[in-house]
Amino acid sequence: MKVAIIGLGLMGSSFALALKKRYKDEKKLEIIGMDINFQHCLEALENDIVDKITDEINDILDADLIVISIPVDAIINLLPKLIGVSKNTTIVDFGSTKEKIIQSIPKEIREQFVASHPMTGKEKTGPLAADRKLYRGKVVVLCNIQDNSKEHLEFAKNIYKDLGMKIIYMDAKKHDRHAAFISHMPHAVSYAIANSVLAQENPQAILALAGGGFVSMSRIAKSSPQMWTDIFKQNKENLIESLDAFCYEIDKLKDLVKKEKWEEVKEWMKDANKLHEIL
Amino acid sequence: MKVAIIGLGLMGSSFALALKKRYKDEKKLEIIGMDINFQHCLEALENDIVDKITDEINDILDADLIVISIPVDAIINLLPKLIGVSKNTTIVDFGSTKEKIIQSIPKEIREQFVASHPMTGKEKTGPLAADRKLYRGKVVVLCNIQDNSKEHLEFAKNIYKDLGMKIIYMDAKKHDRHAAFISHMPHAVSYAIANSVLAQENPQAILALAGGGFVSMSRIAKSSPQMWTDIFKQNKENLIESLDAFCYEIDKLKDLVKKEKWEEVKEWMKDANKLHEIL
Repeated sequence: MKVAIIGLGLMGSSFALALKKRYKDEKKLEIIGMDINFQHCLEALENDIVDKITDEINDILDADLIVISIPVDAIINLLPKLIGVSKNTTIVDFGSTKEKIIQSIPKEIREQFVASHPMTGKEKTGPLAADRKLYRGKVVVLCNIQDNSKEHLEFAKNIYKDLGMKIIYMDAKKHDRHAAFISHMPHAVSYAIANSVLAQENPQAILALAGGGFVSMSRIAKSSPQMWTDIFKQNKENLIESLDAFCYEIDKLKDLVKKEKWEEVKEWMKDANKLHEIL
Repeated sequence: MKVAIIGLGLMGSSFALALKKRYKDEKKLEIIGMDINFQHCLEALENDIVDKITDEINDILDADLIVISIPVDAIINLLPKLIGVSKNTTIVDFGSTKEKIIQSIPKEIREQFVASHPMTGKEKTGPLAADRKLYRGKVVVLCNIQDNSKEHLEFAKNIYKDLGMKIIYMDAKKHDRHAAFISHMPHAVSYAIANSVLAQENPQAILALAGGGFVSMSRIAKSSPQMWTDIFKQNKENLIESLDAFCYEIDKLKDLVKKEKWEEVKEWMKDANKLHEIL
C-alpha cells in the first residue's frame, strides 16, 4: 500500500506512525511525506515516520491513500492540484471544518474524497510530538458520504477501523455547528483565559499559583495560531453562535453573583455537573 | 503526633494519606477524622485513611495539628468552636479564599492559625477519591504569616515541606485576587462551557464528538457546587473582576472575527501562546 501524507505536523505524523504499527507485517507499506516546512520533512524522515519525502505532487498521484493533514485554508488551496489523481486513490482530509472544504472539492475527485474529522489532537505540534496512539479509541466524523463511491468509502472506513477509531456519520453543516461547540469555542475560551491572565500587572505572580485546574483550562491555549485562525475563518458563523451561547451563561453567572443569589448559583453549577452523566 | 482532620473530602482524606505515608515510621501518629457526612466518616475509617472518628470537638482540642478542609463558609462557622484549643495546637485551613477567613479567626487562636491554600485538587470528591500524591510537588500559599507565632508557623511549614510542597507567602488580599484569576474564574468558565453545550437542542450529538480539548475544558465543571458557591460568595469582587477581564478578551476576539481581521486574530492567539513561556 502506498500512502501519501500531505502535512507532517502532529496529526499527519501520528497517523503515519499508527499506520506503520498497524500494518507492520504488510511488506509493501510505503509512506511518502510532503510538507512545505523543510524541517518537518527532515524530522519525519530521520525518525522513520515516513519512508520518503517529496515536493512533487506528481509523485503521489498514484498512491492508494492520500491523507491531507494541513490547515483548513491550505486544504482548499491544495484541492485543484489533486485533479490528476488516479481513480483508484482514496483521499481523506483531517480538516476541523467540513462544509467549505466539501464545497471546494473538484467534481472530478468528489467520489473518492472521504471528508473526515478525527476528534483528537494535542497542543503540541510537529513530527517530534507524533504519537502512534493519538487515534486509538477516538471518534472520526465522516461527512456527506452520500457523495462517495462505495469502494472509496469502504477503503477509508477500513483504515479507520483498523486503527481502532469509532466512526460517526454526519451532514457537514451539522458537523460544523457541533464542532464549534465541542472544539472551536473551547479553544477560543482557552486562548482568552491565557490572555486575560497575561494582561494583568504581574502575571508571573498569578501563574506561580497555578494548579491542575488552570493547567487543564489553559493547555489548548498553546495550540497553533495559524491552524486555529483558519478554522475560525472557515467556521465563523458557528463560532460566533457558540461564543454567544457561552457568553450567555457567563453573563447569567455574573448577574447571579452580583445579586448574591447563591442558591441559584449552586443550581447553575449542579446543571453543569450533569454534563458528566452524558460524557 | 495527634492530627485531627476536619472534613474528610478529597482534600482532607488525601492529606491524611500523605501524612500516613510520610510519617509511617513515627509510631505515635494518630489521625482523628470529623465530618458531618456520616458516609465519609465510614469510608475514611474503613479505608484506613483515619484511625478514629469523632463528632465531639472536645476530642481534638489537644491535637498537635488540626487541619480544616471544609467549604469556606463552613470554616468561618467553625472558627469560634476552636477557641478552647490547646496553645500547643497548630491549626491550618485549606480554604480557597483567605481574606474573609483570616478576618474571622478569633484573636485567642490567631497566632497558632496558619492560613493556607494548597494549590491542588481534583474534580472528584470524597474519601474514596483520596490520593496520597495530591500534595506532592504542589504549591501551598501561606497568608499573613506576620500574625503567626514563630513556633506554630515553623511547625506548619515543616509538615508542608515534609510532604514535598513548595511554600509561597502572600498577603491575603493579593492571594484572593490572584486565586480568582488562576482558579475561581477558570472554574466559572468550565461550568459555563458545560451549560452552554447542555442548553443546545441535542447535547448528546454534540458531546459524541468530544475529544481531548473538550475533556480538559469541561473537567472541572464536575466540581462540587456547594464548595464553589461558597468560594464565589467569599471572593465575589475579585471573581467579577477576573470574569470582566476574561470577557474583555472574548469580546475582543468576537469583534475581530466578525470584522474578519484574521491577522489580528492570529496575533491574539500568539499572545496567548506566550503563557507557556512562563507556566
